[in-house]
Amino acid sequence: MIKVHYLGDSRAHRILWLLEELSVDYDVVVYKRGPDYLAPASLKAIHPLGKSPIIEDGDLLLAESGAIIDYLVERYGKDAGLKPDTASASYWRYNYWLHYCEGSAMPLVTNKLLFELLPSKTPFFVRPIAKLICKGVMQKLIDPAFKDHITHWNKELCRDGWFACGDFSAADIAMSFVVEAAVERFEIDLDIGAVRQFIDRIRTRPAYQCAVERGGIYRLANSK
Amino acid sequence: MIKVHYLGDSRAHRILWLLEELSVDYDVVVYKRGPDYLAPASLKAIHPLGKSPIIEDGDLLLAESGAIIDYLVERYGKDAGLKPDTASASYWRYNYWLHYCEGSAMPLVTNKLLFELLPSKTPFFVRPIAKLICKGVMQKLIDPAFKDHITHWNKELCRDGWFACGDFSAADIAMSFVVEAAVERFEIDLDIGAVRQFIDRIRTRPAYQCAVERGGIYRLANSK
Repeated sequence: MIKVHYLGDSRAHRILWLLEELSVDYDVVVYKRGPDYLAPASLKAIHPLGKSPIIEDGDLLLAESGAIIDYLVERYGKDAGLKPDTASASYWRYNYWLHYCEGSAMPLVTNKLLFELLPSKTPFFVRPIAKLICKGVMQKLIDPAFKDHITHWNKELCRDGWFACGDFSAADIAMSFVVEAAVERFEIDLDIGAVRQFIDRIRTRPAYQCAVERGGIYRLANSK
Repeated sequence: MIKVHYLGDSRAHRILWLLEELSVDYDVVVYKRGPDYLAPASLKAIHPLGKSPIIEDGDLLLAESGAIIDYLVERYGKDAGLKPDTASASYWRYNYWLHYCEGSAMPLVTNKLLFELLPSKTPFFVRPIAKLICKGVMQKLIDPAFKDHITHWNKELCRDGWFACGDFSAADIAMSFVVEAAVERFEIDLDIGAVRQFIDRIRTRPAYQCAVERGGIYRLANSK
């Protein structure tokens, strides 16, 4: 049986959701974040970088969300319709989103979080200056880049409501976390109706809801 | 013919290198960085996020290094031996590195660069405090995480000298940029002999050298 090492309230939610979509049996080992909200050291006993998610399937130990999603669909989802045919035009679009979600979009969201938290981690007498510096980085670097990204998502979703095109696929599962996190974290003065509809649509899927239950906590499932 | 949109002195070097390994004809459109070292706006005319590399192959426009590498090997490298057989044990290791290089390792390196440059972008009267804050982030967050990552690379490379195992593969091309960038940017007080040997080994490949010539500039090819 597949074992999922799951850091509570994290992007690992997607792996549980995918396993639910594929109707594959799995065990979840839940890890709690420390008071600093970081992953606990016990995850390092599983994989040297101590990151989540990680899956174990027989002899295979696999980390990196994109690779895990690719593996599960390839191994257990041949007939599940969650991946376009590799010869089709939409296959490379699918593959693009699998790489893009962690490689390009997530670093923006995690940096937003980092620069929001940073002032509170500095001594109180430099805090006003720290706030000013962090605000500058967000206004000049992170927020403008982010506007480009969310505009990109909205435009792509306007086509037919899904990322890889045509129908729901594992690329939508891959993108879900960063879309939910971004819409929660950024003040968005853009028309992103297609993005909001995407979020509503994925949350109605029974498999999404089962995954929220199995993981115990996935705060973003209740974000605005 | 394949067209590569190439931002000078960037991770796009890997795509030229891969095309050289595959002996595939290609055109390079070189983009120069602005005085702020960022990509020029002209790249946005090609792809909405204005990032490099991007390839055009007939009707296909593809961004994201991991997806591009996957595409080129799949489309032009069936017999090139740059990808383990999908049924082999090393295939998922290969796939892992393709996702890992941009999803987990590069954000650390770009953040290192960001926090190094940040003080110089602040008004001179807050610069000492900015330096202190940035130093704190590096010492507490970036450098320790980075030590884990480079230790992970070194251990993996100790097996047989390559990332995906057994022999040179496109995973080594994928990982090359972040390995070269990291070894240049971080003070490393670790035993990373296997990492240094990896760098020496890839640089002796004729295809690597041809790509450096075709791209015009790839500064990291001369890093320590």
